[in-house]
Amino acid sequence: MRWTKTYIPTFKENPKGCEVKSHILSIRAGLMSPLFSGVNIYLPLGWKILLKIVSIIREEMERIGAQELLLPSLSPSSLWEETGRWKEYGKDMFKFKDRKGGDMCLAPTHEEIITEIARNGIKSYRDLPQIWFQIQTKFRDEPRPRGGMLRAREFIMKDSYSLDTDEKSFEKSYSLHRTAYQNIFKRCSLDFVIVTASSGLMGGSLSEEFMVFSKTGEDAIVICENCGYKANRDIAVSNTNDSADRCPKCGEKLKIKNAIEIGHIFRLGEKYSRAMGAFFLNTNGDREPIIMGSYGIGVERIMACVIETKSDNNGIIWPPSIAPYKFLIIPLNVRNTETRKLSEKIYKEILAQKYEVLIDDRDETPGTKFKDADLIGIPFQIVIGEKGLDKGVVELVKRDGKKKWEIDKERAVSEILQIS
Amino acid sequence: MRWTKTYIPTFKENPKGCEVKSHILSIRAGLMSPLFSGVNIYLPLGWKILLKIVSIIREEMERIGAQELLLPSLSPSSLWEETGRWKEYGKDMFKFKDRKGGDMCLAPTHEEIITEIARNGIKSYRDLPQIWFQIQTKFRDEPRPRGGMLRAREFIMKDSYSLDTDEKSFEKSYSLHRTAYQNIFKRCSLDFVIVTASSGLMGGSLSEEFMVFSKTGEDAIVICENCGYKANRDIAVSNTNDSADRCPKCGEKLKIKNAIEIGHIFRLGEKYSRAMGAFFLNTNGDREPIIMGSYGIGVERIMACVIETKSDNNGIIWPPSIAPYKFLIIPLNVRNTETRKLSEKIYKEILAQKYEVLIDDRDETPGTKFKDADLIGIPFQIVIGEKGLDKGVVELVKRDGKKKWEIDKERAVSEILQIS
Repeated sequence: MRWTKTYIPTFKENPKGCEVKSHILSIRAGLMSPLFSGVNIYLPLGWKILLKIVSIIREEMERIGAQELLLPSLSPSSLWEETGRWKEYGKDMFKFKDRKGGDMCLAPTHEEIITEIARNGIKSYRDLPQIWFQIQTKFRDEPRPRGGMLRAREFIMKDSYSLDTDEKSFEKSYSLHRTAYQNIFKRCSLDFVIVTASSGLMGGSLSEEFMVFSKTGEDAIVICENCGYKANRDIAVSNTNDSADRCPKCGEKLKIKNAIEIGHIFRLGEKYSRAMGAFFLNTNGDREPIIMGSYGIGVERIMACVIETKSDNNGIIWPPSIAPYKFLIIPLNVRNTETRKLSEKIYKEILAQKYEVLIDDRDETPGTKFKDADLIGIPFQIVIGEKGLDKGVVELVKRDGKKKWEIDKERAVSEILQIS
Repeated sequence: MRWTKTYIPTFKENPKGCEVKSHILSIRAGLMSPLFSGVNIYLPLGWKILLKIVSIIREEMERIGAQELLLPSLSPSSLWEETGRWKEYGKDMFKFKDRKGGDMCLAPTHEEIITEIARNGIKSYRDLPQIWFQIQTKFRDEPRPRGGMLRAREFIMKDSYSLDTDEKSFEKSYSLHRTAYQNIFKRCSLDFVIVTASSGLMGGSLSEEFMVFSKTGEDAIVICENCGYKANRDIAVSNTNDSADRCPKCGEKLKIKNAIEIGHIFRLGEKYSRAMGAFFLNTNGDREPIIMGSYGIGVERIMACVIETKSDNNGIIWPPSIAPYKFLIIPLNVRNTETRKLSEKIYKEILAQKYEVLIDDRDETPGTKFKDADLIGIPFQIVIGEKGLDKGVVELVKRDGKKKWEIDKERAVSEILQIS
């Protein structure tokens, strides 16, 4: 891709009113642009990263045998009244009437819709187990949207739902998800911990959260360095019935750390299947409620957490797995014929090898190009300038740690591909 | 994929209240399930087909240099008031207030949002031309939703927008889209015609529609077999100022045919850029309004049109380019050991060759399996039964036209891959 043919609006100054690092950097690097409170536009560079995250999620969900489908955002009030959540969600749910006066909402999650499918379509134990997932837009009218992608009113979520005949079968579905989530976050280069948490509006018994440590995180988690107990502070407080200073398991003093949840897995049990009548016939021909689980990942939150944890004072440092491009070619002066010719040659050769490469073919100063290169954080920069060319070399710079190599200009591409 | 591990709920009977063929077949084949009026659930098989259509669209849009981004569905009233469309859309737009009382809507199209990005980010002629596209959910509160996927209240659209400095540059963007659309529809095996049409609420000068002939189509188009004139009947009426019996170009009698629009391309001109103040500095340093175009494709409509035109009395006949699987293996009796073993062997060998294959491993009668196979319309059926095995053969059946081959069971996979 040529910089002049795509749209990457970068900014030198921090945007006004933004305090969270990922919010600031995602705007400055031209990844996204806020439209209004809690609602974002994803620009080409940011969307490319989100699509890579989506691919990783899709691969890992398919690996555990999950079936992808797509549920609608529009939802009739009747389904939510069956479970009591029409009222429970209150103002957090966008509710309105359609042109015929029917009450409807934008689904903030999809347990009710999944249970509706199950009660119509699942007849017997032979139709189970099922794991269904979607990568879809969610809407929540947050009272205080913040941090750009961290707490938005419209966001992309991978949500999946397991349907099982009994606890034993459910344990397998739950454990498959736990493994899939670990793989997804590892592939996105996120260091995470898994903590026990409360289930909130989702209901059911206990749940587990996947958390990334971050100073800007909204959640407090407690960790016992003695016995390994880890929990969301809320649940630790309710377990210990006090201020959660001490571990409820071994009594040692707990550490408290801030952490921006990236995944949450819930044991729903029979809550939804009983409320909405989703039953199956067991091997004896008796009716039993389906045992359900619910599992969420915030797609933009992964992007935000990577920025929070993989960046320096100059900008973002993308892990190769989700980088928008692997290489950024920087011709320092496009008016210099040799620079331009060699840059184009290297660009075309890398493209021909099927690597993703961006060339900064703008007629800008080297200073601007270097600043933008560090800001947008492509893993490898290939710098082509007159000084180097006089010595017969181009420079390969690793964005992560600033390791540099001087590469013979004649066999630049083969050497670059070998090193990177 | 194993039929027993995925979720394909098929129905022998036509669903009640459905009259349109694609609506009936998409429900009966387990592709989708209506949630409520004009709002659909896409089940695994249907979603797999839609993802293939999305891939084709993405490839062809990237081929013309279009940049993918993602715009939000939530939109503040203020932007729509600038162009007058807050009122113009009337009840066709889902409008509501957020928890703080702010007026907002679900965007039925995205010209206002694109113009908002352009007026903030496009500074000079050096930032142009741009083509931006997204594949995203649209919401329109249709007074009469119909035909399942044909006229829904929530649907997926590829919408793109071109930004140019002048008419000449715009003509290129428009013509690139015309070519991309032709490629997309051809790759989806749709026979289409391009007709001139009116621009309706989109504004701007004339537009062109891509139409597929279909008895259930909602649009009437007129065709002159003498001079080749083709137009939406509405525009022909306004051009001829009468009942549009005669061609406005050559005066010959016009033919009228029914046809369910699959794509629409619009010359917006300066309508949005002037209304919202999206200007750029030209080479002389003077401010000029950006020349815009807008281009839409209904993703589910492609699926519906393929079903309308590629099906017989038994079910759907998917073109290979968008078929959910290339092969369907049908072991006629899974309780027969030789049948089961050979079916599994063929299944694993085809998978190892990286082809998409579904095996009907259900313990069902041959009659049910044959009916379901024809209904869901996978291009090639591999039938494995005791009669054939006694002769040392399996049967390869082409869904399109029912051509059959007897294949030596020992080298089944290599022969099947060669024939198909």
